[in-house]
Amino acid sequence: MRILVVNVNTTQSMTDSIGAQARAAAAPGTEIVPLTPEFGAESVEGNFESYLAAVAVMHTVRSYPEPFDAVVQAGYGEHGREGLQELLDVPVVDITEAAASTAMFLGHKYSVVTTLDRAVPLIEDRLKLAGLSDRCASVRASGLAVLELEEDPAGAVEAIVRQAELAVSEDKAEVIVLGCGGMAGLDEQIRLRAGVPVVDGVSSAVVIAEGLVRLGLTTSKVRTFAPPRPKRVTGFPLNLAVGV
Amino acid sequence: MRILVVNVNTTQSMTDSIGAQARAAAAPGTEIVPLTPEFGAESVEGNFESYLAAVAVMHTVRSYPEPFDAVVQAGYGEHGREGLQELLDVPVVDITEAAASTAMFLGHKYSVVTTLDRAVPLIEDRLKLAGLSDRCASVRASGLAVLELEEDPAGAVEAIVRQAELAVSEDKAEVIVLGCGGMAGLDEQIRLRAGVPVVDGVSSAVVIAEGLVRLGLTTSKVRTFAPPRPKRVTGFPLNLAVGV
Amino acid sequence: MRILVVNVNTTQSMTDSIGAQARAAAAPGTEIVPLTPEFGAESVEGNFESYLAAVAVMHTVRSYPEPFDAVVQAGYGEHGREGLQELLDVPVVDITEAAASTAMFLGHKYSVVTTLDRAVPLIEDRLKLAGLSDRCASVRASGLAVLELEEDPAGAVEAIVRQAELAVSEDKAEVIVLGCGGMAGLDEQIRLRAGVPVVDGVSSAVVIAEGLVRLGLTTSKVRTFAPPRPKRVTGFPLNLAVGV
Amino acid sequence: MRILVVNVNTTQSMTDSIGAQARAAAAPGTEIVPLTPEFGAESVEGNFESYLAAVAVMHTVRSYPEPFDAVVQAGYGEHGREGLQELLDVPVVDITEAAASTAMFLGHKYSVVTTLDRAVPLIEDRLKLAGLSDRCASVRASGLAVLELEEDPAGAVEAIVRQAELAVSEDKAEVIVLGCGGMAGLDEQIRLRAGVPVVDGVSSAVVIAEGLVRLGLTTSKVRTFAPPRPKRVTGFPLNLAVGV
Amino acid sequence: MRILVVNVNTTQSMTDSIGAQARAAAAPGTEIVPLTPEFGAESVEGNFESYLAAVAVMHTVRSYPEPFDAVVQAGYGEHGREGLQELLDVPVVDITEAAASTAMFLGHKYSVVTTLDRAVPLIEDRLKLAGLSDRCASVRASGLAVLELEEDPAGAVEAIVRQAELAVSEDKAEVIVLGCGGMAGLDEQIRLRAGVPVVDGVSSAVVIAEGLVRLGLTTSKVRTFAPPRPKRVTGFPLNLAVGV
Amino acid sequence: MRILVVNVNTTQSMTDSIGAQARAAAAPGTEIVPLTPEFGAESVEGNFESYLAAVAVMHTVRSYPEPFDAVVQAGYGEHGREGLQELLDVPVVDITEAAASTAMFLGHKYSVVTTLDRAVPLIEDRLKLAGLSDRCASVRASGLAVLELEEDPAGAVEAIVRQAELAVSEDKAEVIVLGCGGMAGLDEQIRLRAGVPVVDGVSSAVVIAEGLVRLGLTTSKVRTFAPPRPKRVTGFPLNLAVGV
Repeated sequence: MRILVVNVNTTQSMTDSIGAQARAAAAPGTEIVPLTPEFGAESVEGNFESYLAAVAVMHTVRSYPEPFDAVVQAGYGEHGREGLQELLDVPVVDITEAAASTAMFLGHKYSVVTTLDRAVPLIEDRLKLAGLSDRCASVRASGLAVLELEEDPAGAVEAIVRQAELAVSEDKAEVIVLGCGGMAGLDEQIRLRAGVPVVDGVSSAVVIAEGLVRLGLTTSKVRTFAPPRPKRVTGFPLNLAVGV
Repeated sequence: MRILVVNVNTTQSMTDSIGAQARAAAAPGTEIVPLTPEFGAESVEGNFESYLAAVAVMHTVRSYPEPFDAVVQAGYGEHGREGLQELLDVPVVDITEAAASTAMFLGHKYSVVTTLDRAVPLIEDRLKLAGLSDRCASVRASGLAVLELEEDPAGAVEAIVRQAELAVSEDKAEVIVLGCGGMAGLDEQIRLRAGVPVVDGVSSAVVIAEGLVRLGLTTSKVRTFAPPRPKRVTGFPLNLAVGV
Repeated sequence: MRILVVNVNTTQSMTDSIGAQARAAAAPGTEIVPLTPEFGAESVEGNFESYLAAVAVMHTVRSYPEPFDAVVQAGYGEHGREGLQELLDVPVVDITEAAASTAMFLGHKYSVVTTLDRAVPLIEDRLKLAGLSDRCASVRASGLAVLELEEDPAGAVEAIVRQAELAVSEDKAEVIVLGCGGMAGLDEQIRLRAGVPVVDGVSSAVVIAEGLVRLGLTTSKVRTFAPPRPKRVTGFPLNLAVGV
Repeated sequence: MRILVVNVNTTQSMTDSIGAQARAAAAPGTEIVPLTPEFGAESVEGNFESYLAAVAVMHTVRSYPEPFDAVVQAGYGEHGREGLQELLDVPVVDITEAAASTAMFLGHKYSVVTTLDRAVPLIEDRLKLAGLSDRCASVRASGLAVLELEEDPAGAVEAIVRQAELAVSEDKAEVIVLGCGGMAGLDEQIRLRAGVPVVDGVSSAVVIAEGLVRLGLTTSKVRTFAPPRPKRVTGFPLNLAVGV
Repeated sequence: MRILVVNVNTTQSMTDSIGAQARAAAAPGTEIVPLTPEFGAESVEGNFESYLAAVAVMHTVRSYPEPFDAVVQAGYGEHGREGLQELLDVPVVDITEAAASTAMFLGHKYSVVTTLDRAVPLIEDRLKLAGLSDRCASVRASGLAVLELEEDPAGAVEAIVRQAELAVSEDKAEVIVLGCGGMAGLDEQIRLRAGVPVVDGVSSAVVIAEGLVRLGLTTSKVRTFAPPRPKRVTGFPLNLAVGV
Repeated sequence: MRILVVNVNTTQSMTDSIGAQARAAAAPGTEIVPLTPEFGAESVEGNFESYLAAVAVMHTVRSYPEPFDAVVQAGYGEHGREGLQELLDVPVVDITEAAASTAMFLGHKYSVVTTLDRAVPLIEDRLKLAGLSDRCASVRASGLAVLELEEDPAGAVEAIVRQAELAVSEDKAEVIVLGCGGMAGLDEQIRLRAGVPVVDGVSSAVVIAEGLVRLGLTTSKVRTFAPPRPKRVTGFPLNLAVGV
C-alpha cells in the first residue's frame, strides 16, 4: 500500500519530519511518500497561504506519476481536502480531522494546541465544518510560529506543555491534539509532561488511511465529491500550463 | 495483539457472525476474541435491555481471564462504553462511534439504517452525546427486528437497501452506516445495490482499535474515565457475588 | 397517591435523608416510599457505578410488591430513567431533569453545583440529552465526595456556597441547582447564603410527579418507551434469576 | 393559595373556558382567578397583537387589587412573561413553557399543534428562547383561527387530531402539546383519538405554579428579572395614566 | 427617501443624538425623521420597559402622519421589531440586528459592549432569535446606566473602552458593537482607543434601510409578518382610544 | 467610490451580466469594475474549481493596477473571501453572505435556490461558517448547471420558480435568495412569480460594500485577517511568477 503524505508548505525539512512521523506510524508493508508542494508559502499561517496551499497540494498530488492508495493532507487546519476528494478515487485524510476523530475515542473532551493565535479561528472553523467540534474544549495557541518549532524544539515543547496543562486544568480537556504538522515527533515528550494522551495528526491520519484502504472504503462519489464536470479549466495543473 | 469483541446480547450465532466480521477486518497478527454475555436479552432493542447489556458487557470483560489489548463493544446504539473505559486501561471502541467516525471520512453526510423504529431515538442520542451527529443526515429503520436479520438475510438486504436508497435520495446521505451489530456481513451486498460506501461498525471498530494500540494511545484517566474510587460495591462482578 | 423514591446507591442513611426531603415536599395524602437498591455502589460517582445503579434501580422498582402511582429516580446525573419508562405505565421523574426544569421557571440561566469534578461531564451529558442544557450556565464541582456530604454537612454547605457564588458572579447563573441526591436538606441554608433561589432535585421531582399523576398524564408508549418486546431475557429481575 | 390566570386576549368566553380548565387542574384549596385584559385584541394571532397583550397582561396583573401567590400567563406562544417576572415577587408561569416542560417528562419528542400557520414561527421562537426546543419534533398548524375553536369545537378536534396524527407518524412526536389557550378542554378527546399523551398548557401551568409556591420558590431577582430601576415612566399602568 | 428613526425611550436629548448619528450616516437625499415615543420609560433597561416601548414605538410610527420609506427602531436589544413588520409595508430595521450583521462583514467574531449587566441577557436573546449569535464572542456590560452615558460621555468612553479591550484580549472579538442607542457618537473615539472596528447600530441601520429601499426590497408578507387579521382591537393606537 | 466586482469563473459573458447587475444596484457616483479571473474554470461548480477560483480571484484583485474602495466576490457559495480579507485593507463582501444577511431583514426564514445539487453542501457549509444558517429554511437545487442559466434564461426562471414555490410552501421560507452569481437579473421576474421578496447576491453585496465604505468601516486586522506575515512565498501572484 502506498500513501502520499503531502506537506502544505514548501519547507523541505518539515516534509522530512512529517515523513518520518508517518513512517513510524505506518504498518509494515505501507510505503510512505512524503511530498513537498512546488509553490506556496514556506509556512502556512493564514487563509491566503492556506488557499494557495490547497491548490498547490492538489497540483502536487495530480502531478505525482505513480499509482497510490490514499492521500494524507498534512497541514493542520488548512483548506483543500474537499478538492482532493473530488479529483481522486482513493481515500483522502486530513490531519485535522484524523486527530480530532482519534482524540474522541480517548477522552470526553479534547483540546488543540497550535502555533500562532491567528491560526485558532481557522482551526475552529475546520472542526466546525467537519462536525468534530462538539467535544473540542478549546483551541489554544502556543505563540510559536510554524518555523520556530523546528528552530527551537525544546522551547516548543515548553510552550506547548504550558498550554496543554491549561487546557486540562481550565478547559477540562482530557486529551491534547497537536495542532500543527510541524509538531510531528513531539507527542511522546508532551504526553509525559502533560499526563494525558497526546494525539499527533500525521500518525492518526496514516493509521486511518491504512484502515480505509484495508476495508475497501473510499470517498462517496454521489454528490459533494463527484468528479468535476467536464469543462474548460485554464491553468491547472499549473506545471503543465504555466511551468512553475 | 488481542482484541475482545463483545456482543451485547446473548445470542451465540450473532456473536459468531460478529466474530467473523471482525476477523475479516483484522490485520494479520491480531487475535479476535468474540464474547457473549452470560446474561441479558437475546436481542437488545430498547433502553431496559441496553442498560442490562451495559452491565453484562462490563461483567463479561471483567471476567475474561487473559490479558488483552483493546475492547470492541459490538452493539449499535447501546449504553455502556463509558463504564468500560473507567474499568480498563486499554482502548475501548464502540461500534456506533467507530462507524460514524469512519463514515465522516467518506462523504459529506451519512445516514444510519437500523432495525426497528424504536431504536432510532437511542441511536440519535448516542450520536449526539458522542458529538458525531452534525453530519448525520438521518437514522432510518428497516422495520426488521434484530433476530429477523439472521432468519432472513435476503429480506434484510432488501429492507435495508430500500431505506439506504431513500437516505441517499431524500436525506442527502452520501454514505450508509449499518446500524446493528447483526448486520455484519451485509455491507458488500448493500454497497453494490445502493451505490454508495457502506460502513459496518464491527469492521470499523476493529481497525480503529488496532490503530490506537499501534500508536500507543489509550483512554485518558484524568477525569471522566478515571478508575472507580475505592468503595464498597455489592453485586459486581455478578458471577462472583451472585453466581449468575 | 404513592410515589416510590429510589436512591441510586446502597447507603441507607442517604435513602433516609432523601425520603425526608421527599416527604417535606409532598402534598398531604401523598405516600412517599423511599427505596434502597439491593446491590451496587455505596455512592455513585462515575459511569460504571451509574450503569450498575441503572439496573439496580430497575430491579428494585420491579421487585416492589405493591401498586404505586409514580417513580422518582433520586440520583443526580445518573443513567437509567429511560429503562424505567419502558418497564412501567406510571410516570417516571429523574431528579436531574426535574431540578433543571424547575430552575428554568425561576431565572434566565441556572448552574448546577455537584460533588466531584468527575461527575461534571456525566451531568452535562444528561442535561444535553434531556434537552435542558441551553440555559445551563455551568456545572461546578464542590470537590466533596458523595459520602463526605453526610459526614460534614457544615463543610459541605461552605463548599457548595463557594461554588454557588462563583456561578452567580462568573457564570451569570441566577438560580442554583443542587446536583446530588445527597444534598437534600441543604437547600434552604444555601439559598440564604447565596442570595438566589436554590432548587433541590428530590423536592422538585416529587412535586412534578404528583402533578403528572393529578393531570392523568403518563409516559407515551408509542415508540421510545414502548414496553420491551417479548423475548428471552436471562438474569432479570436479578433476585428471581440469581438470588442476589 | 390564589393564582391569577390571565388570558391574553379580550374575549370573555375564552377567559371562562381557561378558568374552568385551570380549576379542574388545581389542587383543593387553590383559588383560581381568571382575568381578562382591559384592552388588546379579541384574539391574539401575531406579533403586533402579542406585544399589545404583553402590556395589557402586565397592566391587568398590576391593577389586580388583592394579594396573590402566582400568575399564569395563559397565551400560547406570546410575549410578555419576562416583564411580569420583573414586576412581581411571586412565580410567573407561561403556558407555552409549562406545556413543553411537562411534555418532556412523557416522551422522547413532542409536537405542538396550534391554530394558524402564522403562529408557528412565534411559538418556535418562544420555545427556542426558553431553551425547550431541542426535543420539539415540530410545531404544526391546524389552520383554525383562535375564535373558530370556540365556534366549532367538533371541527376543531378533527383538525387538531389530523395534525397530531401527522406529528406522530411523520415527525416522530410521542406527545402532543395543545398550542393555544383556547384549546383548553379538548385534551382528553384528542388523547383518545391520537393515542398519545396530550398536554394542555393551562393545566400544566397551574400545577407547576402550585408546586413552586409549595416549595417556596420564586423568580430570582439578581439580574435579568430584578425589579425595574426607579425612573420616570409615562403611561403605565395605563388605566391610571390614561383612563383606557 | 424618508426614514423614521424611532427612539425607544422618552428622553428627547437621546432622540436628538440618535437623529444626529443617523443624519451623519445617511446618503445625500435621505431625510431622517427622529421620533420620541409619547409614553414609556425615560430609559429602557429591562423587559417591562422594553415591552412597553414595543407598543409605544408601534403607536408612534402608526401615528406619524406623513408617508415614509423605512423605519429604524433605535433601541439596542429591545422587543417590538416584529410587530412593526406586521403593521407596515416598508422595511423595518432594528439596530441590534443591523449592527451585528454589519460587524460580521468586518471580523471573525464580534462583541457587544452595552450598559448594565441586566441588559446582557436581553441582548443575547435578541441575537439568538435573530440568528446572529454564532459569531458573537460576548456581550459585556460597562456598568453604566443608559442616562449616565449622556451625563458623563468621557467616563462612558473609558468604561466602554475597558470592556472593549477585554473583549478583544479575552473573548477574541475582532470587532466591537456599541450596544446602546445612547452610545451613538462615541464610535470613533472608541475605535481609536480599542484598535478594532467599532460598529454603531444607528448608523448601520440607516445604511441598511437605505439599501433595502434602493433595491426595492421590503418585508415578506406571506406568513410571519402578514398584516394583522381584521378583528376587534381595543386601545390601539393609544392616542386615539385613550388620549395619552 | 470604486468597487471591484470579481467573477469567480472565466466566462466573460457572466462577468458582463454580473457587472450590469452591480451597476443597477450601485448609488450614483459608485464606479463598478467587473473583473474576470485569468485562470480557472469556465463555471465553478465544486470544491476543486472553487479552491482554484479562490486563488484566481486573489490573483486578479492583487493584479488590479488602480486604487479601489471595496471588493465584491461574486461567486455564490465559493471559497476565498478570508484570503482577500488578509491581503486587503478595504472591505471585502462575499455575495453568499451579503444575500443571506439581506434576506434576514425581510422575513423569518429564507431559502436559497441554486444550480446543481452538488453545490448545495458547499453553500450550506459557507452559510454555517458565516453564522448565517440559523434562519436558512433550505438550500434547493434547480438542477440547472451554471452555464445553462445563460443559454436558457426562460427555462431557468421556470426551474427556479418551481423550487422557490416549494421552499415557501414546504420549507416555510418567506424570502428567496438566488444562489448563483449567474442568476443576476432574474430576481424581478422570480419575485413576481413566487410572491415573496427575492434577493440577488450581487446587488446586495454592492449596497453593503457601499455602506461599509461610507461608514468608514473595514476589515479588522487584529487576528484572523491580519496581513500575511513576511515570509517566502513562491508562485504568487501567479502572473508575475509564472506568466499564466
